[in-house]
Amino acid sequence: MKLQTFPGYTFLNGGVCAAQGFKANGVCCGLKHQALSDDTVTEQNLAANNALSDDENTPKKNDLAMILADCPCHTAAVYTTNKVKGAPILVTRKHLKNGLAQAVIVNSVNANTCNADGEQKAAKMCELAAQALGLETEDIVVASTGVIGQVLPIEPIRDAIPTLVEGLSYDGNKEAMQAIMTTDTREKQIAVKFRLGKKTVTLGGMLKGSGMIHPNMATTLTFLTTDCAISSEMLQLALSDVVRVTLNRVSVDGDQSTNDMVCIMANGMAGNSEITNDTADYAAFRGALYAVMLNLARMCAADGEGATKLIECVVSEAPDEQTAETIAKSVIESSLFKSAMFGADANWGRIACAMGYSSCNYDVNKVSVDFASEKGRITVAENGCGIPFSENKAKEILLEDEVQVLISLGDGEAAAVAWGCDLTYDYVKINGDYRS
Amino acid sequence: MKLQTFPGYTFLNGGVCAAQGFKANGVCCGLKHQALSDDTVTEQNLAANNALSDDENTPKKNDLAMILADCPCHTAAVYTTNKVKGAPILVTRKHLKNGLAQAVIVNSVNANTCNADGEQKAAKMCELAAQALGLETEDIVVASTGVIGQVLPIEPIRDAIPTLVEGLSYDGNKEAMQAIMTTDTREKQIAVKFRLGKKTVTLGGMLKGSGMIHPNMATTLTFLTTDCAISSEMLQLALSDVVRVTLNRVSVDGDQSTNDMVCIMANGMAGNSEITNDTADYAAFRGALYAVMLNLARMCAADGEGATKLIECVVSEAPDEQTAETIAKSVIESSLFKSAMFGADANWGRIACAMGYSSCNYDVNKVSVDFASEKGRITVAENGCGIPFSENKAKEILLEDEVQVLISLGDGEAAAVAWGCDLTYDYVKINGDYRS
Repeated sequence: MKLQTFPGYTFLNGGVCAAQGFKANGVCCGLKHQALSDDTVTEQNLAANNALSDDENTPKKNDLAMILADCPCHTAAVYTTNKVKGAPILVTRKHLKNGLAQAVIVNSVNANTCNADGEQKAAKMCELAAQALGLETEDIVVASTGVIGQVLPIEPIRDAIPTLVEGLSYDGNKEAMQAIMTTDTREKQIAVKFRLGKKTVTLGGMLKGSGMIHPNMATTLTFLTTDCAISSEMLQLALSDVVRVTLNRVSVDGDQSTNDMVCIMANGMAGNSEITNDTADYAAFRGALYAVMLNLARMCAADGEGATKLIECVVSEAPDEQTAETIAKSVIESSLFKSAMFGADANWGRIACAMGYSSCNYDVNKVSVDFASEKGRITVAENGCGIPFSENKAKEILLEDEVQVLISLGDGEAAAVAWGCDLTYDYVKINGDYRS
Repeated sequence: MKLQTFPGYTFLNGGVCAAQGFKANGVCCGLKHQALSDDTVTEQNLAANNALSDDENTPKKNDLAMILADCPCHTAAVYTTNKVKGAPILVTRKHLKNGLAQAVIVNSVNANTCNADGEQKAAKMCELAAQALGLETEDIVVASTGVIGQVLPIEPIRDAIPTLVEGLSYDGNKEAMQAIMTTDTREKQIAVKFRLGKKTVTLGGMLKGSGMIHPNMATTLTFLTTDCAISSEMLQLALSDVVRVTLNRVSVDGDQSTNDMVCIMANGMAGNSEITNDTADYAAFRGALYAVMLNLARMCAADGEGATKLIECVVSEAPDEQTAETIAKSVIESSLFKSAMFGADANWGRIACAMGYSSCNYDVNKVSVDFASEKGRITVAENGCGIPFSENKAKEILLEDEVQVLISLGDGEAAAVAWGCDLTYDYVKINGDYRS
């Protein structure tokens, strides 16, 4: 996937460790997909199973990550809008009431959601992490991702924390990244540096997310760190604003997760004068956040479960941004359109169809549709009707692994972009038996 | 698929020909999926292509159907809510302003939608049918289904109408049924008879629909005929009311078609005293319509593109019907849940997730979830949390080809049912290159 670049911002490696003063680590504590079957209901059973059934020859995937800042951070977060919320979300929300945190603990495999003891377990994770780090429980952000409705065994996490803490390092972002992945096939992390006056500021992050991804929410687990000095209020403002035009415009399958959270920590170590208002410095900071999150959003869509290609839908000449956004999302969410993209089939009628049921107000007779990719650009509809085009050229364009659908409403100057992917056999395969 | 029966109503064969006084027929006129490529844009080319390229050994599928009543009928219809409407919908709506019609002409393969000359072509189909039948153009209902955005060649239709009319018969429902099928794998037609006073009344119909199927609309092409004497107004009332609780609660893929129409014609030949008010006779008629449309809805979901099983989601103990309906639909529309059903995986967390993003107001801590089929019933969640259950038993239940998801909200007495199917490799395969 090509990175989208922005003048004034230089891309760096390092993810959550790119900014100064942030350590990270990830380990395999041995969490498992474990159904609540009659035979294995107790935590003792789960723990025993975890301890015993590992084949020494099976490579272990990290499932527990930690991020630690050198000092307390202004911290902001955005959470899923799903009514059913993972227990970690409820706990993190409490801990972030004062806008401060210093560390994150996060596990994959088990979402710790729809469990009677979920909140208690999420609080316990914070307590154990705080003890090991010499912090207050309230300074810890906790998150979980994985199967919903299975009791989270605390023992493997408790037992792994000493190793996790011991291994924290200023370049541990890769271990942490791997620990939060579930069906993700690629690591998704990036960072940028930029100037604020005479200071160099860095902002980076990592994102986990491949399925159960939908707009209108925070989408997936994303952890961002920066050494910028910025107040909690302005941090929250920037995060909410940028999530709206990045992660909230990504859809893989229309399913909104129960556990999604985007969290950003700012430790102020860059030494810039603290951003506390909507100034030029704030605009520069927001630009950095946009550069990071836009690219994470595109990586997320490109690595959608089973996806073979990234689809970017641009709706322009719209009467307002909301109309453009709603139509762009409706198109990238259409299963029929997504299946056609998998087949590199220029069946633009499905785009017209998805636009039509978006409940937006627009003139169907002014719509034009183009397809574009590295191989060129082709117009397939004008004034709401099909026009002659070369099927061979269209196929060539659509066979690329990054495809743009360019829709003009011919009725204004607003625009919006949404990102999605194709619907493939592998999506069904991955989700036909995710738990096993 | 098992038929759902109702006391007082006897199921019959015969579809749209079951009621007295209705003939039908279907023929293959030779419409083709034909892209608007540079090489084949003219109708002359299309017609030539239609005439020349048929391999004599290829079995021809019917693509043009007609229904003819012995006398003018009170007629009612419900149309797609998609903003992009097929040209035939616009023409039919005009023709049904007076609540009367006597014949239907309908083609598959080409949807005649998003074409500059669409309305003109749809009107021409009515004109040609009317001429051949000795009727007024306004007495004809027209419908099309197939690929959107391709010019409809009128010549194959014009040339086939004499044969189509000549072959009309009182048991031609099977030929007509086959002509309206696209990716449907099974014929979907049914009829019931019931008593109104001393008269026997019959009502039957056929439904086409497999993909691009979604609630909140009429869903697919459905043609119903009855010999009941009933006013156009009461016919419309019954149709709109029954569509709401049957076809509008079916989802295959969340895509709302541009061409959907449900049309019912009543010729009054049963000789009952005409239903003009909300009487007991009306209730009996509505019951017949419900019996037919409920079973057509279930057939539609069971034959969803690529489906291996019918999924019925029943939400009960809800505070109101709207809440129950919205939650039931949200569950059957979830790609993740549908993929799990394909894998017979009792991953009920995805149900909790889909309920949570339905935007309904309910208490997540009072929810219980059961799975049921011919193989039994199992509870997997209570009070919003997972409970111990046998994975083996759950798998056995979910491997059946009709599965029920039973959700209780524990907070009222309202209920609603929605129907869907699993998401499979074949859905992707069918839709990856539908046009070729």
